[in-house]
Amino acid sequence: MAAPTDRSNLIPLSSRLKEGRALALDVWTIFSAVNLPHDCINLGQGYMNFAPPKWVTDAAEEALNAVAPNHYSHPRGRIRLREALKAHYSPQLKRDLDVESEILVTSGANEGQYSVFTAFLEQGDEVIMFEPFFDQYLPSVTFNGGKPVYVPLHPPKATIAKPTSDDWTINVEELRRAVTSRTKMIIVNTPHNPVGKVFKKTELESIAAIAEEFNLLVMADEVYDCLVFDGREHVRIATLPGMWDRTVTVGSAGKSFAATGWRIGWLIGPKSIIQPTLAASTRIVFCTNSPLQEAAASGLEHAKEHKFFETQLAEYAERREILCQAFDRLGLKYTLPEGSYFVLLDISRVDFPDDYPFPESVLGRGRDFRACWFIATEVGVSSIPVSEFYCEEHANIGEAYARFAFCKDVDTLRAAAERLQGLKKYLK
Amino acid sequence: MAAPTDRSNLIPLSSRLKEGRALALDVWTIFSAVNLPHDCINLGQGYMNFAPPKWVTDAAEEALNAVAPNHYSHPRGRIRLREALKAHYSPQLKRDLDVESEILVTSGANEGQYSVFTAFLEQGDEVIMFEPFFDQYLPSVTFNGGKPVYVPLHPPKATIAKPTSDDWTINVEELRRAVTSRTKMIIVNTPHNPVGKVFKKTELESIAAIAEEFNLLVMADEVYDCLVFDGREHVRIATLPGMWDRTVTVGSAGKSFAATGWRIGWLIGPKSIIQPTLAASTRIVFCTNSPLQEAAASGLEHAKEHKFFETQLAEYAERREILCQAFDRLGLKYTLPEGSYFVLLDISRVDFPDDYPFPESVLGRGRDFRACWFIATEVGVSSIPVSEFYCEEHANIGEAYARFAFCKDVDTLRAAAERLQGLKKYLK
Repeated sequence: MAAPTDRSNLIPLSSRLKEGRALALDVWTIFSAVNLPHDCINLGQGYMNFAPPKWVTDAAEEALNAVAPNHYSHPRGRIRLREALKAHYSPQLKRDLDVESEILVTSGANEGQYSVFTAFLEQGDEVIMFEPFFDQYLPSVTFNGGKPVYVPLHPPKATIAKPTSDDWTINVEELRRAVTSRTKMIIVNTPHNPVGKVFKKTELESIAAIAEEFNLLVMADEVYDCLVFDGREHVRIATLPGMWDRTVTVGSAGKSFAATGWRIGWLIGPKSIIQPTLAASTRIVFCTNSPLQEAAASGLEHAKEHKFFETQLAEYAERREILCQAFDRLGLKYTLPEGSYFVLLDISRVDFPDDYPFPESVLGRGRDFRACWFIATEVGVSSIPVSEFYCEEHANIGEAYARFAFCKDVDTLRAAAERLQGLKKYLK
Repeated sequence: MAAPTDRSNLIPLSSRLKEGRALALDVWTIFSAVNLPHDCINLGQGYMNFAPPKWVTDAAEEALNAVAPNHYSHPRGRIRLREALKAHYSPQLKRDLDVESEILVTSGANEGQYSVFTAFLEQGDEVIMFEPFFDQYLPSVTFNGGKPVYVPLHPPKATIAKPTSDDWTINVEELRRAVTSRTKMIIVNTPHNPVGKVFKKTELESIAAIAEEFNLLVMADEVYDCLVFDGREHVRIATLPGMWDRTVTVGSAGKSFAATGWRIGWLIGPKSIIQPTLAASTRIVFCTNSPLQEAAASGLEHAKEHKFFETQLAEYAERREILCQAFDRLGLKYTLPEGSYFVLLDISRVDFPDDYPFPESVLGRGRDFRACWFIATEVGVSSIPVSEFYCEEHANIGEAYARFAFCKDVDTLRAAAERLQGLKKYLK
């Protein structure tokens, strides 16, 4: 008698799912609220526990009460948003942007970046990224046939008592050595997630020189561009000499207006990059949701009169301060971020029992997975283990860190700061 | 002296953009409102000129005024929407759907379908589609390394005086002959765009038998499932014996609730299809916009108490009637659609001067492009040429038809019906 056929996996998967950690249980799921203690304070995933401004959401409500903004937008994005982006970015990029060919609205910055990979990567093309890297880059590259190549951001030297994100450094010769005949693209994420590094002009100039020399496309992921602290200048690599023609700059309404669930992002660059990316994006999502494009447009249009970005930046500086003071009180080292809303805490000294009741999902991973789990369950503050932002070979570097997000209101951060003092008795 | 370097196309495109018409000027752009006379009545692109119901949009407004629904949703979709989909689809699919593993919310049905291709297609895998086909399928397949294979829907015989969408027929032997060792998937679009055909149970049984015999994944694109007229039964292929395990059913809030710009779609199927597709979708868009998921959920939750789908269907039946009567008065043949909101008009008898001032964009294309342009500019009603829904080799079949959308309010359709009588003097 024939055995009953197992019909639970009839159709073989694409081999692309076997690369780039696509089927692995991702860190966001492992450390999601449902898996942690009910009253855990969530400083893990980078979304806000406050709402976008009312004067921004009002525009979405208006849109919902009209006809056209409930229907398809042009795949390039709604003209109102593209005009608002032109007004916002033209001075910063020092050019008069063309709304028809140099701006593309996407379904979140993520989909925009994915579409660039779809438009430009040939099977086997290499994409250089600085490590640690935003974890979505890896499968986004491999799904499109690309091969990620890692260049380290070197961690602060152990002798530095109070490191800042500036102490995470690149070595230009290492970058140059990473380039091969198959290198197609380099990703420059500034301000950087998870390090918080704001790349200096000299660093960007070195990267630009290599991009020019080897004819590389530069993806400037600048989604945290409105979160640069201490009066630091955020230099856009697209403004360096010769770089406009080969750079696509990525932005996000979610990060700018505390609306990560709106899925409104954008790409800005020359027609030669935007048009093919539009062709890709049009087929991947067709167009981006219309009502929230109206809201994002309104946000950009009225930001100045509300002093929105200045106020928001000051608020984030206060939030950063609360979290960093908590680490100071604990006597733990961390990287003071010059940008973004993340702090990397050095967790090497956090001592947890080997026989702590860890779940299966963190046992097979780096020490940081266990440390973050321990901190979340023992003192009630969740964070994200940083080895997830490294390739497997270099995961050990990331194991020394946990990423804490401070995109939360001050009361939440103060409560987290208090709870974190509970770690004192577990330090070695 | 060296010639100045042209920097306008520094970075070579991916070869995938050279396939599947990805860079061609698409029909939607050529026939978009901005290119046609200002007062043209738009029966071209399939979006409504009315808004979604207030009781549906209200839920989006509530979401905008809360915190969590402005932030990331779970990549699977918001639990409220997944629960609403479970309640809506479980009886129709005759199973108790699992919200964790059998339902996936996507950024429009389009992105959902794209993600299925990403998850399952291996380079060179073949995807069978009935021709004419929804034009997005072609590049979505080729971008993911797949090869489209076309099987005809045979047009109504010339002897049929008043054809319906039932008179577009499949030949099962042709379908069987199209299967090769590389065939991975078959797309079954019912109700069908642009034909309006609602596949009969016997037809679906024949397709199912072939899918079983050759172990094919079936993508059941049923986004027009709430628009099936004349008391016809809409059979879901996933409910046929043995088919659940290999079928993913596609739905759309845009089509269901007159909100094409919300970009909320969904996939329903076995865990073995949904989980890999989730892995793909998570990397492509990460998640779908949150506020409009709440609205779609509310729509499904309260549809019954508002008798929404019954009322909407009756309204669409009236719209269909207005448009079809206009064609009857003209004495032109058309296909009466049993489903969807499109009517295919036979434009063979529309006679236009060869030296009519056509734009470049339609001159290089089929006769139907010129006919549709002529009708739009001469009588002021736009439609879509149907050769765009055919592969190049068979475009001549599509040249006989123009697709008119009746997802417009009755006043607009009545005005269009009057204008269309102006074609009388151009009939041969």
